[in-house]
Amino acid sequence: MKIVVLKFGGTSVGSIKKIKKVAEIIVGYKRKNYKVVVVSSAMSGVTNELIKKSSEISNNFPITEYDVLVSTGEQIACSLIAGRLIHKGYMSRSWLAWQIPILTVGAHKNSRINQINKIKIIKYLRKGGIPIITGFQGVNNDNRITTIGRGGSDASAIMLAKFFRAERCIIYTDVEGVYTTDPNKLKKAKKIKVISYEEMLEMASLGAKVMQPVSIQDARLNRIDIEVKSSFKNKSGTLITKRSNIINNKIVTGISSTQNDSKVSLIGVKDKPGVAAAIFKPLSKNLVNVDMVVQNISANGKETDLTFTIKTDDLNKTKKIIQENKTINYRKLVFEKGVSKISVIGVGMITTPGVTFRMFQTLANKQINIKVISTSEIKISVLIDKINTQRALIALHKEFKLDHKK
Amino acid sequence: MKIVVLKFGGTSVGSIKKIKKVAEIIVGYKRKNYKVVVVSSAMSGVTNELIKKSSEISNNFPITEYDVLVSTGEQIACSLIAGRLIHKGYMSRSWLAWQIPILTVGAHKNSRINQINKIKIIKYLRKGGIPIITGFQGVNNDNRITTIGRGGSDASAIMLAKFFRAERCIIYTDVEGVYTTDPNKLKKAKKIKVISYEEMLEMASLGAKVMQPVSIQDARLNRIDIEVKSSFKNKSGTLITKRSNIINNKIVTGISSTQNDSKVSLIGVKDKPGVAAAIFKPLSKNLVNVDMVVQNISANGKETDLTFTIKTDDLNKTKKIIQENKTINYRKLVFEKGVSKISVIGVGMITTPGVTFRMFQTLANKQINIKVISTSEIKISVLIDKINTQRALIALHKEFKLDHKK
Repeated sequence: MKIVVLKFGGTSVGSIKKIKKVAEIIVGYKRKNYKVVVVSSAMSGVTNELIKKSSEISNNFPITEYDVLVSTGEQIACSLIAGRLIHKGYMSRSWLAWQIPILTVGAHKNSRINQINKIKIIKYLRKGGIPIITGFQGVNNDNRITTIGRGGSDASAIMLAKFFRAERCIIYTDVEGVYTTDPNKLKKAKKIKVISYEEMLEMASLGAKVMQPVSIQDARLNRIDIEVKSSFKNKSGTLITKRSNIINNKIVTGISSTQNDSKVSLIGVKDKPGVAAAIFKPLSKNLVNVDMVVQNISANGKETDLTFTIKTDDLNKTKKIIQENKTINYRKLVFEKGVSKISVIGVGMITTPGVTFRMFQTLANKQINIKVISTSEIKISVLIDKINTQRALIALHKEFKLDHKK
Repeated sequence: MKIVVLKFGGTSVGSIKKIKKVAEIIVGYKRKNYKVVVVSSAMSGVTNELIKKSSEISNNFPITEYDVLVSTGEQIACSLIAGRLIHKGYMSRSWLAWQIPILTVGAHKNSRINQINKIKIIKYLRKGGIPIITGFQGVNNDNRITTIGRGGSDASAIMLAKFFRAERCIIYTDVEGVYTTDPNKLKKAKKIKVISYEEMLEMASLGAKVMQPVSIQDARLNRIDIEVKSSFKNKSGTLITKRSNIINNKIVTGISSTQNDSKVSLIGVKDKPGVAAAIFKPLSKNLVNVDMVVQNISANGKETDLTFTIKTDDLNKTKKIIQENKTINYRKLVFEKGVSKISVIGVGMITTPGVTFRMFQTLANKQINIKVISTSEIKISVLIDKINTQRALIALHKEFKLDHKK
């Protein structure tokens, strides 16, 4: 069977009109003789409304009932999609996770799909049916409804693609695909036709909101080709696949930048085991998201300088936490608002020497000072003054030949 | 086990505030050492919103998916009630019909509860839990969600009371109970403390919107005591029970009246078999609800006069249907707008002669002309000019001593 999994996000099914459009997209694949497995999120806004109700009932709403409550969102969307397909003369029905079943393990509100019973769906596909499956949810050993913590409906789609050995998993969303950099920040940003899982992971971690990193990682582990595309425009999207499927690797695939970051430096920290933990544990506890962390090797073996970045919104909180923590010894504490992290990402870097140099030289040519550097196998990140972000983006986008279509 | 079934209607769970109140009511019974089984409807408005969505998707939305769609309403309400009880420190959880299961037979959108598996709920009650069960729905042999056509959540409550041999089934709603007559029409209307199933059936058929006749009939067949009371006011309601439980039978328990009725008379109809069917079949097909039907015995054995009432809204439709139907032979067709049906109801009538006479005399004393009469064992209905409705109500309410508390 030539199976394709189509996943529709909340904005794609956000209104009756959009659901009708979604039904047309599904019919398109059916006509191409695909066996189509559909996964849907809740209509946009519905889940938030339900969560609001739960928080009005209790500031500590039980997670067992939370799952029962929010899972209705996907149930509604799936019944409407199936209803529309039946209206158009197709054999279709909603399949709720417990009817298949999609079995999960782990705590409520944070479950993980463990097993999908294929029998009923395969039988249904053979008869020519189009199953519309509720994303984001499952049922546990106790026969209770669960929801998937991380990745949501994307994770459902990828697990369905895995269990049904789908040819492809297509994620329909409100953007046209993955771009070389944020199109809102740089007009010249180009849609990437094909990208490796690893690059996509870096891009997602850096804020490309197309898919959650955990779902990309699931797809990578199970070698499932994902296509991200818009449900509103009939255009090809971005294919996320394994590196060996990508022939014309550019050195750099994409560039990302952050906004509203602040830099925190602890100068002259006692260089002994447990220091980093002592600093970051209270921050983590207080939900401060620490991004780049750089520690210089101490010259004398006794002291070191530690630098990290946070969102500027968390700056006051961070100041207070560090200043009140008497267990950390340092000589000086330096805060700097208005910094930005620029990252260039590309698997091509591994085999191409000199990318780091080209990046630094490009910034130097523009008189842009680099404050902190951090690198991984397929990514180089630098911290610069926020004011230089746009200029840096333009220069690097050009330097790594991203201005032209791939 | 001393089991009580508490059913909450849509208005009783119509807001977060009201759901919190409902949780308090439940706790009250728990404290009295009852094993409490709760059944809830959807929050008021929710079901209609879902139905609106379905009709926007298709003017012929499939009934299988309709059930999947609208059943989310009760799921939401039940998870919120359970969540509130857990918040208050009680052991509670939502039980969706398929988790119990509540098995139904019959078509989608119009199913009937056939069987309730008691094992899980009994076990849960023994452990001290408060099950919050979704009303109005079940699951069929194909493991698909169904909804109950007639009676809705009331029917669910009564079937649960039956299967769990509950001591009582309490229907919480937005009225305080059943009244001797509509309190909106007559200020002196009194709440009835206790009423027989049979009387309640007549009252419900005549427009007392407290419960649907089908659910009263189910309760009657299974000898389940029902109490109807308000979830907003802490007052005793109306007990619906078998006749032998009622000691101080009044002759008349209640009086009802209709509004906006019209009378249709076919004078000089050929008196032969099949005539009534020929008249009423096309009306029924066109969804005209025919109420009182009276046919006089024909004097000559060849002709008869047939009179029936309909809602005035259906008058033009009815005129057209009858005039266009060439298979009916009659001499004259008379329509009369602005009539009202007044009915007195009471099981006491069976054993008390002269009720009919007292009713007619009371109306005669007020110079109110009676157009049509129709009687049953426990009910007398008369048709009068609409203009006289209020005066008739006042006079009869007084005549049958309903002005004073029972």
